[in-house]
Order: sequence, then C-alpha cells, then structure tokens
Amino acid sequence: MAKRALEGTRILDLTRYVSGPYCTQLLADLGAEVIKIEKGIGDDTRRFGPFLNDHCVYYEFLNRNKKDFKVDYRKPEGKAVLRDLIRESDAIVENFLPGTMDKMGLSREELDKINPKIIVTHISGFGQTGPYKSRPAFDCIAQAMSGVMSVTGKIGSDEPTMIGLTYADYIAGTFGALSTAAALYHIKANPDAEGQDIDISMLDAAISYSLFATQDFINTGKVMEKHGNRDPSLSPSTTFKSKDGKYVYIHCGKDVHFKKLMEHIGRTEVLKDERFSTAPARMANQDATESIVAEWVAGKNAFDVEAELAELILPCAVVADYGDVVHNPHVQERGVLQTMEHPDGTKMPVTGPVIKMSKTPCEIYSLPPEIGQHTNEVLKELLNYSDEQIAVLKSGDVI
Amino acid sequence: MAKRALEGTRILDLTRYVSGPYCTQLLADLGAEVIKIEKGIGDDTRRFGPFLNDHCVYYEFLNRNKKDFKVDYRKPEGKAVLRDLIRESDAIVENFLPGTMDKMGLSREELDKINPKIIVTHISGFGQTGPYKSRPAFDCIAQAMSGVMSVTGKIGSDEPTMIGLTYADYIAGTFGALSTAAALYHIKANPDAEGQDIDISMLDAAISYSLFATQDFINTGKVMEKHGNRDPSLSPSTTFKSKDGKYVYIHCGKDVHFKKLMEHIGRTEVLKDERFSTAPARMANQDATESIVAEWVAGKNAFDVEAELAELILPCAVVADYGDVVHNPHVQERGVLQTMEHPDGTKMPVTGPVIKMSKTPCEIYSLPPEIGQHTNEVLKELLNYSDEQIAVLKSGDVI
Repeated sequence: MAKRALEGTRILDLTRYVSGPYCTQLLADLGAEVIKIEKGIGDDTRRFGPFLNDHCVYYEFLNRNKKDFKVDYRKPEGKAVLRDLIRESDAIVENFLPGTMDKMGLSREELDKINPKIIVTHISGFGQTGPYKSRPAFDCIAQAMSGVMSVTGKIGSDEPTMIGLTYADYIAGTFGALSTAAALYHIKANPDAEGQDIDISMLDAAISYSLFATQDFINTGKVMEKHGNRDPSLSPSTTFKSKDGKYVYIHCGKDVHFKKLMEHIGRTEVLKDERFSTAPARMANQDATESIVAEWVAGKNAFDVEAELAELILPCAVVADYGDVVHNPHVQERGVLQTMEHPDGTKMPVTGPVIKMSKTPCEIYSLPPEIGQHTNEVLKELLNYSDEQIAVLKSGDVI
Repeated sequence: MAKRALEGTRILDLTRYVSGPYCTQLLADLGAEVIKIEKGIGDDTRRFGPFLNDHCVYYEFLNRNKKDFKVDYRKPEGKAVLRDLIRESDAIVENFLPGTMDKMGLSREELDKINPKIIVTHISGFGQTGPYKSRPAFDCIAQAMSGVMSVTGKIGSDEPTMIGLTYADYIAGTFGALSTAAALYHIKANPDAEGQDIDISMLDAAISYSLFATQDFINTGKVMEKHGNRDPSLSPSTTFKSKDGKYVYIHCGKDVHFKKLMEHIGRTEVLKDERFSTAPARMANQDATESIVAEWVAGKNAFDVEAELAELILPCAVVADYGDVVHNPHVQERGVLQTMEHPDGTKMPVTGPVIKMSKTPCEIYSLPPEIGQHTNEVLKELLNYSDEQIAVLKSGDVI
C-alpha cells in the first residue's frame, strides 16, 4: 500500500527559479518521485542569497523531497539520457520560455514517439499562446498586469502597492500541481488515455483571484478602487493602532458582532444611535463607527485586544510581523514551520507542507539535493545503465 | 473515454462562502461531479450584492459547473438522504467550523460505517487542531495573522496594508482541490486504500507563501520590513509614474537588462558611472538609479513605455487597473474572462478556468445552479428513489 498519495508516479522536473520548483515540490510532498534535471552549474537560485552555512535559503525553500540528476541535455548523448528518463516517467513539469521544449527536440510530436502517455505541465509568465507569450515575466510583472496592485494600498491614493511577498509565482505553481495531479488521475482511471499538455500562466492565475473586480468593470464601467484595509461591505472592519504601537484587525461589521463588541467595551449607548444601529448605517458612517473602536484599541496592548475578542468569538487578529508569526502558539502547535537538519548540523527553518492528510501524510522526507546527487542511482536502478555506460557519459562530461 | 480529467468522481459539497465553494468549483471545472448540498435558504452568498438582473455576482463567481441538492439534513429523514449520497460519493468537501461534522453525526467513525473509502476535505480558517481552531476566520483575519500585511506597503511606514483582493480564501481553496485530487488518485491507484481526512487551514496556507520571511527571523532575529514596490535585491525594479498619470513597473536590475534600457533611453554614459555599472552598485545607489528611469518614464505615456520595452524583451508592465485588465489584448486572446449566458439573457462575466489541458479541457459547462435544481434528478437517477419516496420527503419539507 502506498504510503503517500502520489506514490508510484514519477515526474521529470525541468524547472528552475520559483513557480516550477514550487509546483514540483508540492507534488513531491504528496509523494511523487520528482527528479530535478540540472545542467552546468544548475538552477540559478542555488546562488541567490541569503545563505545559512553555505546552504542557500532560497533554493532550500523550493526543492526538498526531490532527487537530482545532472545531465548536459544540449549534447546528443545527454538528449538520449533525457529520452530514456522520459520513457520511464509519468509527467514533465517545465517553466522555460514558451517554445523552448520544441527547440530542445521535445515537441509533443517527438514526445509521443518516446512516451505517448507523458503529461507535460508548462508553467510560464503569460502562457503558451497569446501575443505576450514571449515576454519575460517575473512576479512583480504579473502582479502589475493582473490588477491587484491597483486595488492595494491607501484609499484615495493613485499609487499602486505591490504585495510584499511573491504571489503569482506561487499561485501558478499551485495550479500547476493541481492540474498535474488531475491529469495523473485521468491516466490512471482511463486505460486508453493519452498524455497531454497543460498550460499554466502566472498572469491568468493572478487574474483568476479577482472575483468582482473585472465583473464590476464589465457590468458597470466602474473601475474598482482601493479600499485600504477596510472590508468593502461591513463596518467596523479595518486595522486599529494599539497602545503598544502595533495594529489589530477587527472585523465586527455584522450586527451580532458589533453588539457584542459594544457591550464588551462598555459602549452600549452606541447601539441605540441610529448612525450605528444597522449595518448599512454603519457603512454610511464608517469614520465615526471606526473611531469608537479606535479609541478603545488605543488604550490597550494589541495581544490583549486579540485575546479578549477571541474569548468572545469575535473575528480579530493582531497584524503579525514575522516575529509574531514564528512565536504564534497556534502556528507552533500546527507545525507550520519545520526544520530541515543537514549532516553538517545546519538547521534550516522552512514552512512545512500545508496539506495534512490522515492516511497519506505530506511531510519533509528528504533534504534539498545537491546537483547530480542521484544521477548514478537513477541511471543504474531506474534506467539499468551499466557501469561502463556511466563511465563513458562521465568522461564525455555528459553527466 | 472520459472527456474531463476528474470525470467519474463524485464530490458532495457541504461548503458555503468562499474557500469551500472555490475549491469545489476548481474540482468541477476539472470534471468532477460536484453536488452542492444546501438547506433552508441556502448559501448566504446567494444574498450578497452586487446583483446583475437578480443573479448574484458573488455566488455566480464561485458555483458554476455544480449540481444543487436541497435537503434539510437536520431532520432524521434528511440525514438518511445525506447518508445515501455519501454512500455513492468519492469525497466530501466541507468548510464548517471544526467539530461541526461530528455534531452532524458525520465523524470519521460514522462515515466509515457508511463508506469507508470516502475522502473528507476539511477547509477552515485555522485548521482542525490547535488552540485557535474554534476562532472565527475571514480572509482579512488570515491576512493579518499570516504576516503578509506587515510587509506590504510603503518603505518605512509602520501601517499595515491589506491585499485589495481576497487572498487566503482562494489559496486555501486551491490547496483543498490539490489535496482532494491527490487523494482521489491514491484511492484509484491502490485498490485497498481507505478514505481519509484532509485538513486545510487558511492561515497555514497564507503563511506557506512567505519564503524568506520566517527563516530570516529564525536565523537572524531580523523582522522583515516593507520594501514598497521595490524588488528586494535588484535595482531599478519598482513602479514609475508616467506622463499620463499611470504607473509602469520596470524590472531591469540585471546587468544585461540595465544596459539595454540605458541604450534605449540614450543614457549610455550612465553605464560608465561606477554608481550604476554593477548590480551591487545600483542597489547601493537605489534612489539615484531609479531617478534615471523615472525621468524617462515621466515624459512618456504608460502603454508606450510597455510597448517599447516589450519590443526589447525587457521585463515591464503597466500597473493595470481592472479596466486595463479587461481591455488587455493578451488577456482577451487567452480567454481569461468568459461570459455565462443565462436563459433570461443575462450575460455574467467571470474569470474562466486557469487550467488549460489539451485532451481534457477545463471549461464552463453548466451555469451556477438554483437551490435544489438537481434534487429530483439525483434522487431518481443516482439513488433510485421512487416517486412515492420523493413525494413523502417533499411533503415533510425534507427536500
């Protein structure tokens, strides 16, 4: 019985940077055997700072649970090795510029000759089709073009705001993993099913999370504007500054929540005031509504506010910085942050698998690999190459 | 041969609001038969504004491609119907407050008696375990607690900034779909496999996208700060205001990009200046580096800047508002935005499926259902209930 959900599947990982490696890491966490293919000095992220005792934090975050196979696939002998690997795999994930696979001799037509059941998941900035497909993409570019920067930031400001974390890369990577898993299901469930190509675009993925924004424009011609930290339809619902200089998000716009909050802070007279007694009235008097809450929060420490309101089952959270995140007792008990321990004693903290499955657990079961760490193992055990064949490939600088 | 990737799987959808319905919609787009279970007046989002000819934009965005089954599962007869549905399904997705399924008589122990292969995907704000599990969660609360608000916004500002779109709900929904697909694969690939529980937390999911932020703190004690719209390691890489009052993101911090950019704008003398000649030098002189680019952008219209730099294959994008997104020729050609046409003539614009698969296309194949639209069909065709049985359930207000 398989110990992990995608155990029994093998994925050739022709990705680098963020979106692709994140995708294949999700699949590896779920138990797929992911073989990361590198050539030359390997994935550029291996050389990005910061480092922890020579271990690259960036690379380590995106490449656990994978095997690593070094091969110069520009050489004919390397191409032949790659074809042998494709023959034994269920899927390829790649995030080159569109068209690169064709140039490498790995068009669908060629792949069908090698392994007609192979799934290829293509992840790129703008997708495999469309006028912008050859444009270079980075997370910031996808954020800018997707619209999210135009609605993030202060009310009334014309200045766009970038999300302070990588966004489109991860979303695209997660969609890449979802579609690959679904395609693997399709092949398993349908004995006659053929391989197929999956096209994931960072821009499409980022736009897909926009809900009303595009509809609003199409239906009404109204361009969505920034709503700051406010909920667009309920009040009070925003961030409030506390006595200790932190901020607290309080989301108590529903009548039942607002009533409880006013009772707790000793302001029950507010409930009889028609400016605040209904949800629409509070939205019409948003500044005044918020000032009642602001005054209370200003006199208290942030974590005391959160604890008191949590006790009342009111939606509230301290706006955490990353120190707060690390120290959060709930985050600690959930094991959101985990540590990868290297043989040299280095303890590398990372976020663990989001997915918790009761029978086929997602877990960190192997360290991010060195370049070529599993080349020999894979050549011998999977491809049955002889020692002589391997020696020839080595002497020719192919592997 | 199945036409869609997850065709042949059936999912009972006990979700409402955003994270759960988004998850099951992703699975339905991929071809799973999703049966949305509603009681009473149904999912609250059916009554959220805005509306387009009585069709709720919010509900429509999250519930296409599903069937709808109305049953009062608080009544014993309704519970019996639900158990019959569970017997015929592969997975349940739910996003109640943790513990609700147990209270409904649907603990794992009880489910195993009905269908020991059933997968249950639980999506919640804080997960099924941990001290905060019973706290109410909303997207804004997960954003606040996850850390992302603390690093979004202007450099040097202590004020947090909320992402202007729903974020944690969608990420959690996408992880819910990924884990469900992987669990479906596991059951299909392993004849002896049992059902299992999957636990997805919005907070865990939002924190998982943080890459360095938590590591930095654990390794160095340094809390990550806001970097505004700047790339944290390359310059120039930020937003620049154009002559027509828009903004353009230009990401030309790599030497090769910077050189091309300076040549294009006729400032080759800059390349000989040691303040700008290397990537580290430009990071040490970020303001001065940016001012060179700012001066050029200020004299041009935003879309002209984008077009010129795209021609040179330099990473650049106009910071789009949602009007720009809708009019973007690439977005149009990719079919990112689609229209659902209702029998009454209403044309509802939505974002279509992100996933493009060559053999098992994801597409919008049925409209968001009315409450109970498929109750009769499912009772008769799937559960083989007689007309008499159905009449009894109707007269008892069970369905």
